[in-house]
Amino acid sequence: MTPSVLTNPRAERVKAVRALGRRSVRQRSGRFVVDGPQGVREVLRFAPHTVLDLYVDGAALDRHETLVQLARDANIHVHQCDPAVMTALVDTQHPQGIVAVCRPVDVPVADALGDDTGFVVVLAHVRDPGNAGTVIRSADAAGARAVILSDASVDLYNPKVVRSTAGSLWHLPIALGGDVAELVAACRERGRRVLAADGAGSTLLPDADLSGGHAWLMGNEAWGLDETTRALADDVVRVPIHGHAESLNLALAATVCMYASAEHNAQGPAS
Amino acid sequence: MTPSVLTNPRAERVKAVRALGRRSVRQRSGRFVVDGPQGVREVLRFAPHTVLDLYVDGAALDRHETLVQLARDANIHVHQCDPAVMTALVDTQHPQGIVAVCRPVDVPVADALGDDTGFVVVLAHVRDPGNAGTVIRSADAAGARAVILSDASVDLYNPKVVRSTAGSLWHLPIALGGDVAELVAACRERGRRVLAADGAGSTLLPDADLSGGHAWLMGNEAWGLDETTRALADDVVRVPIHGHAESLNLALAATVCMYASAEHNAQGPAS
Repeated sequence: MTPSVLTNPRAERVKAVRALGRRSVRQRSGRFVVDGPQGVREVLRFAPHTVLDLYVDGAALDRHETLVQLARDANIHVHQCDPAVMTALVDTQHPQGIVAVCRPVDVPVADALGDDTGFVVVLAHVRDPGNAGTVIRSADAAGARAVILSDASVDLYNPKVVRSTAGSLWHLPIALGGDVAELVAACRERGRRVLAADGAGSTLLPDADLSGGHAWLMGNEAWGLDETTRALADDVVRVPIHGHAESLNLALAATVCMYASAEHNAQGPAS
Repeated sequence: MTPSVLTNPRAERVKAVRALGRRSVRQRSGRFVVDGPQGVREVLRFAPHTVLDLYVDGAALDRHETLVQLARDANIHVHQCDPAVMTALVDTQHPQGIVAVCRPVDVPVADALGDDTGFVVVLAHVRDPGNAGTVIRSADAAGARAVILSDASVDLYNPKVVRSTAGSLWHLPIALGGDVAELVAACRERGRRVLAADGAGSTLLPDADLSGGHAWLMGNEAWGLDETTRALADDVVRVPIHGHAESLNLALAATVCMYASAEHNAQGPAS
């Protein structure tokens, strides 16, 4: 059987994928795009049932043979396409020749919160796609139970967020929406202490109580957490700044906090 | 006295500043550009003697009055310029109306290594400007004694590196050059243990010996440290990955390692 090859960059199918670069189209259609072999591999490994279509150009078909086979085994429709079609599919500077169209994977907030063990991360009004994606990747690495993005945050399915997660989008539960006060209340109801991470915090990270289930509340990259939001937390914790730096950026501060929690978990419950 | 205002975007002086976007021109002239109020403020605070000229447009002159006064007090020539000249001075998407032309601030490797206390960071072949700048910012925040960039690393005075340091460029000693093997040998001669940070490390970060003076050796963002380089180190340390993430990016891994050292320092010498 000779597979048919997509050759027309102006085909309706191609335009429909390209349009998924816009948030409104993603929301209306309930689809988003995963661009590049790393993301495609992780969604095929961790959530193959959410993959609707796979697009590959000739070079990628050879280079990523195993991935393509994985998709075929999962009965996913694999469309071979010309490089010109690939360029038209996604708005990327360096297309990598392999693109998947997928359904969302976010879960309800209640499911993300799970029980009261370990730690979760709540991102309040995080707007920069790279920061949001990087924090999700760090949360995965540090062993967070889940990540929750408050409303007024960047869209989880923004192509830059998806890329910055480096596949972690499919590795842990991620929930969307709710205002920050509601999310804090939900964490508390589940028996999680809420620790706001903020440069204005009075508790230094090494002195913070990381025993028991908790939630890290992380603020916007530019203005942090406002006073009202900080007041909702059980404690406001700051990463110590030893030199003359004004602060750490959001992703770095979040990662240092989460690894402190991970280290505490690894040591087991305090005696 | 009415200050003269630069109005011609094609003036030789303006072209000469713009040309500092190129590494070869920076090296030949021994000058580089600091773009935006944060960098300008930090260089004026920490190394005013290295500032040769300050360029401000009308809006920035009002908005950053204190900065401009600081420059005038230090006898730095302040050039007021039209917005069109500002746009011509630097290759930035969003010019912030204030630009300084400065002399380098790097120090010899021997000075950066200092004595054998605390920790330093050696960046081996780090190529991405944002990563290099961010690690310098983190090193500052974590209290590193110095940062050393091996040869074949990105240019410290690349505008994107300068911007990503968020002012930390002037907060701690930074040295340039030397191949990695020489730098490792120099660290050892000063009594510093060398810890390579690498996902292939056999020692987990919480188990690493961070007592006494040491140097963190960080590899390239894409390929890490090669086997030969890892073999030079006293130990190869990896940040634990608890979830399904493949790795942390360079800046995040480096920050977690440096904060582990900082925390160890804060607790004082082990009993």
